[in-house]
Amino acid sequence: MFYIIGLGLCDEKDITVRGLEAVKGCSRVYLEAYTSILMIQKEKLEAFYGKELIAADRDMVETESDEILRNADKEDIALLVVGDPFGATTHTDIVLRARSLKIPVRVVHNASIMNAVGACGLQLYNFGQTVSLVFFTETWKPDSFYDRIKENADLGMHTLVLLDIKVKEQSEENLARGRKIYEPPRYMSITQAVSQLAEIEEIRQSGTLDPHKTLAIAVSRVGGGEGQEKIVCGTLAELLSQPPEVFGEPLHSLVIVGKRLHYLEVEYAQAYAVNPETWRNVAHNAYGCALE
Amino acid sequence: MFYIIGLGLCDEKDITVRGLEAVKGCSRVYLEAYTSILMIQKEKLEAFYGKELIAADRDMVETESDEILRNADKEDIALLVVGDPFGATTHTDIVLRARSLKIPVRVVHNASIMNAVGACGLQLYNFGQTVSLVFFTETWKPDSFYDRIKENADLGMHTLVLLDIKVKEQSEENLARGRKIYEPPRYMSITQAVSQLAEIEEIRQSGTLDPHKTLAIAVSRVGGGEGQEKIVCGTLAELLSQPPEVFGEPLHSLVIVGKRLHYLEVEYAQAYAVNPETWRNVAHNAYGCALE
Repeated sequence: MFYIIGLGLCDEKDITVRGLEAVKGCSRVYLEAYTSILMIQKEKLEAFYGKELIAADRDMVETESDEILRNADKEDIALLVVGDPFGATTHTDIVLRARSLKIPVRVVHNASIMNAVGACGLQLYNFGQTVSLVFFTETWKPDSFYDRIKENADLGMHTLVLLDIKVKEQSEENLARGRKIYEPPRYMSITQAVSQLAEIEEIRQSGTLDPHKTLAIAVSRVGGGEGQEKIVCGTLAELLSQPPEVFGEPLHSLVIVGKRLHYLEVEYAQAYAVNPETWRNVAHNAYGCALE
Repeated sequence: MFYIIGLGLCDEKDITVRGLEAVKGCSRVYLEAYTSILMIQKEKLEAFYGKELIAADRDMVETESDEILRNADKEDIALLVVGDPFGATTHTDIVLRARSLKIPVRVVHNASIMNAVGACGLQLYNFGQTVSLVFFTETWKPDSFYDRIKENADLGMHTLVLLDIKVKEQSEENLARGRKIYEPPRYMSITQAVSQLAEIEEIRQSGTLDPHKTLAIAVSRVGGGEGQEKIVCGTLAELLSQPPEVFGEPLHSLVIVGKRLHYLEVEYAQAYAVNPETWRNVAHNAYGCALE
């Protein structure tokens, strides 16, 4: 059997009992370590499982799937992924490959940011499509995310914005010289995300991301409990003016609040507001939310 | 501490290690049993946890939250919910109440249908707002879901349709006589859901849910593994013509496929198709999906 097991969002204890049992019975266990990171190190996971983990980067999962799947028709092999196996990054390719090799597959689901973002207090029902925001460079500022957010916003829906992660980046020099030396991982901060949104709003001018009339909620380490999870909300302008430590440690995500806002949601998130008064005022005046 | 713990989607082993540890340390543990059901009985959960569970129906969670929260400032109390605490049904009310009583709250996330539906092979990114479909009666056929699906479809997005559940229903007679006798639970079947969609399409005629040109994917017991999980796809007309047992046991959900369809997604879901040829043809001809 080939298991793809979601690890959830925080640490070694977020695996399910079913997932843990499967890991313990596997002869090889791969840990996928590219799209997002748990808050803990591989060694801690290994100690908890009592198993050695084989690190599998993006290259390996994509190009060496046959090695990962080797003997999975006879033994149990697992691939561990952060979040859910069908969350922000899907694992359909390796499932397709397993199918073609007639290897049975079992997926063990878990929380991913795609559902745990509900922790910010907004109804998941009212989220539209999800958007990814990549690091802008001097010469490359892809802005199609703006159209997606606008499509959602025009219908009153919220948008979950996933922020870029750069893992295993090579400097231009190392790349040119073919040296497999990697830069330290980079995670987009809320400040950078909001300033990229502002940059494109400045060009497009549709008002979709008006800095003073658009509410947003920054989340990090959802489910991490006291001292880990951070939820901070306000207008885009307010979020931009906060010092970075306010938003906690990466990974961060950002929710652009749509017009379908219920007063109970405003109430709930108010506890996380940079300024509760602005929060309520904008919800009332710009969003037309009838507050009690 | 007041814990709200997601149980995931299938059985006792879908709880996370963190969730299980919390349950074991609690002095009272409530099991919320109204919005959706696990595939197993309360007694099995109790045996697994080594704890008695107090059943909490919708009434109780809404009207007796103070009883649930009693002493949670001094002891650990848990409320167990199927799926994720902020999934299809949110638990913001009881969190707000706990906050006002200065009781610390910890949420333990888990998979919910809102993210596990990715198992059907479609990218979660491209899902729009989620829709609920309630049982039609002779005199009450609420059809606002149609507008929501159309909003999504017009942008090419997929729609997750959650099907109605009736738990603790009273017959008109028992209701009139004030007798607290409840009907057996009812779960909307895929056949009933698709025929309700057809009924409204017949009236609205926008083509959004054209029976022969709209692809849909029925899922049940996602994550339940061999013999439990069922995924079946085809045109709405094809799904309507299947015998009910094809779709497996409840709970069912239905995905209306939007136009943003990638050939790899078509490929992936083809394994679940009522008729792989129609599946590919409609994806190609009606959806404009370039198949390899």
